[in-house]
Amino acid sequence: MNKLELIKGIARTSPEKIVLLVIDGLGGLPDARTGKTELETARIPHLDALATRGICGLSDPIAPGITPGSGPGHLALFGYDPVEYNIGRGVLEAMGIDIELGAEDIAARGNFCTIDKDGIITDRRAGRISTEKSAGLCKLLERISVEGVDIKVTPVREHRFVVVFRGADLHAELTESDPSMTGVSPLEIKAEQAKARRTANIVKEFITAAKGVLKKHHPANMILLRGFSRKPQLPSLQEIYKLKPLAITVYPMYRGLARLVGMAISPKCATLEDEFKTLKANYKKFDFFFVHIKWTDTAGEDGDFGRKVNVLEQIDAALPVLTDLGPDVLVVTGDHSTPAMLGGHSWHPVPLVICSRYCRTDSVEDFSEKACLGGGLGRIRATDIMPLAMANALKLTKFGA
Amino acid sequence: MNKLELIKGIARTSPEKIVLLVIDGLGGLPDARTGKTELETARIPHLDALATRGICGLSDPIAPGITPGSGPGHLALFGYDPVEYNIGRGVLEAMGIDIELGAEDIAARGNFCTIDKDGIITDRRAGRISTEKSAGLCKLLERISVEGVDIKVTPVREHRFVVVFRGADLHAELTESDPSMTGVSPLEIKAEQAKARRTANIVKEFITAAKGVLKKHHPANMILLRGFSRKPQLPSLQEIYKLKPLAITVYPMYRGLARLVGMAISPKCATLEDEFKTLKANYKKFDFFFVHIKWTDTAGEDGDFGRKVNVLEQIDAALPVLTDLGPDVLVVTGDHSTPAMLGGHSWHPVPLVICSRYCRTDSVEDFSEKACLGGGLGRIRATDIMPLAMANALKLTKFGA
Repeated sequence: MNKLELIKGIARTSPEKIVLLVIDGLGGLPDARTGKTELETARIPHLDALATRGICGLSDPIAPGITPGSGPGHLALFGYDPVEYNIGRGVLEAMGIDIELGAEDIAARGNFCTIDKDGIITDRRAGRISTEKSAGLCKLLERISVEGVDIKVTPVREHRFVVVFRGADLHAELTESDPSMTGVSPLEIKAEQAKARRTANIVKEFITAAKGVLKKHHPANMILLRGFSRKPQLPSLQEIYKLKPLAITVYPMYRGLARLVGMAISPKCATLEDEFKTLKANYKKFDFFFVHIKWTDTAGEDGDFGRKVNVLEQIDAALPVLTDLGPDVLVVTGDHSTPAMLGGHSWHPVPLVICSRYCRTDSVEDFSEKACLGGGLGRIRATDIMPLAMANALKLTKFGA
Repeated sequence: MNKLELIKGIARTSPEKIVLLVIDGLGGLPDARTGKTELETARIPHLDALATRGICGLSDPIAPGITPGSGPGHLALFGYDPVEYNIGRGVLEAMGIDIELGAEDIAARGNFCTIDKDGIITDRRAGRISTEKSAGLCKLLERISVEGVDIKVTPVREHRFVVVFRGADLHAELTESDPSMTGVSPLEIKAEQAKARRTANIVKEFITAAKGVLKKHHPANMILLRGFSRKPQLPSLQEIYKLKPLAITVYPMYRGLARLVGMAISPKCATLEDEFKTLKANYKKFDFFFVHIKWTDTAGEDGDFGRKVNVLEQIDAALPVLTDLGPDVLVVTGDHSTPAMLGGHSWHPVPLVICSRYCRTDSVEDFSEKACLGGGLGRIRATDIMPLAMANALKLTKFGA
């Protein structure tokens, strides 16, 4: 019996409400001059108050030393083993722009790129053409007809698009055409398994046709495809936890992830204040709320320590709207760390606080990496967070007699 | 997907260098009079400085409560599940004396022993005969001919030797002939699985012949064989981690272990100062260094608390040669604890420190069992150490999109 089966067997509904506040890229590293991390630098009295009344700890998204992408980072937070349920880049991208994927569809992430007369890639992003320009080119690509499949090409942003192949007996075990570098030709798509050979030929035919269609559209005169993938078959949050979940996010990818695990999706929000207001407006209708805040991660990815500090302070300032709702269980954590010092996702464990009547509080009074180290939860795997949230919401009965 | 496959998929080369300093049997237990462990008693300012700037923790070699042998202890440090990849004593011994084992070879550890006229063992070590004497007897044994196999008998030290059976369709699922006590006869070799019956007969024929050959060589008038084993098929450190690894050790067994996982082996060293000098001399040519220091374990095994303290102080005094090289990642830990109080390996978790620019330091300032308990790494499995070292050396890319 795996963990999800165990949980499924003991989950029950209860009136209690759980809010999972995910501050993307939450954890950081100390600034060399001050010796303080982003969290330690920020004035965050409301988060500190949560640390004081809650139980704290550090969470490893996947395992010590492993840096997660956004997909695995979130799946782990929702309780799914992120190694068992890996999501391809194509699927993630497709779901993020509200494409409803069928179980058999193959999605890939596409880039418009520039090639020279010899077919050598000179710009992998086609000069970052405008989203409008890209949308027009996607329409041209969508007219390409390949026997045995329907092809849908949808613009994402700038040079990025998603292509979905729909048809019988398609397989995603394909190599990528994007060589991840300039100065070389696009790679040939190959089947990684025999069963995917026909799919490889279909994709190759599409790419060849695309090259013809785009010939006169320099700088976007070629495409690169990667992340061929099929939607993983995940049991939903309803099935496992008997929850009625709502996702509140600003960015597409996180809506896609939430949809994948069966969450209802709130109308789009633009700011974190919007997100908290949306939470308030929908508070009666659901019993689980995934609230995703992106800008900490963006600041970290940009290597901007000060901006990450500012975002943390903004979150803290807005937090009373959330806490005034008095959720029975409030979990605040991140899907991974994004230290400004590294300018990207990292492997460092993520601060975590769980507040509830029954959390068994510890002596931690600051919400920071170092303080959470001494917390009552210790250092846990991210997949343990959902069972803990459920337990604190009295939504799990006893295991065994 | 297991952990090593996961790592293999995200490992990349980088200019960063990793030094893994293994202080054998590092952890200890408090002396009853002072209440202080060996590490807490020793004056080790350089190790304490590492604890101060690094991130500390405690590592379980296998699992809480499980005392590892040297083989599992080291395999875990190199990132291999020590339960999945178990190494037989015979193989370990053979590799430690530079015998190149084929994939199908069966190796066993042998002792010359003394039996009386009734065949009862009176001394399991044949009075610890000299290595020279043993070498001569090994030559005699090697002349024994058994159909279907080539037999190689190599002296190790004093009464110990290694015998390797090479041939088709050999199997290592055999019971041992060493009863681990005197006053009884050597045990009969038996096949533990049907497929090993032929091998059992071959080994029995060899033992019978050996008894004849040694008849007049009292006290070494019989042999005892144990640890029948075949080399486990391990993916190498190059394959998994894309590392170029060098092992620096004084004792044979550790060279054997390092060779098993594909490390280059440095010329033999005699002292720890030699080992650190060898590290310095080879620092440019490799990007991963396994430096093994044995004498802490030897002192612990001898139950000599004071000597273990002295060795720790010697290591500390020599340490600047290593730290002056400025390795990007320095890991200091042990393969297991060897408390002098127990006079042997133990199950206690082992102090661990990882130093790097990105380690996210904690508030630990002493390198000891108790201080490491409050460290930022918490209590981890030894198999997590390599992924952490790799991550800190920026040698792992993201998992998943």
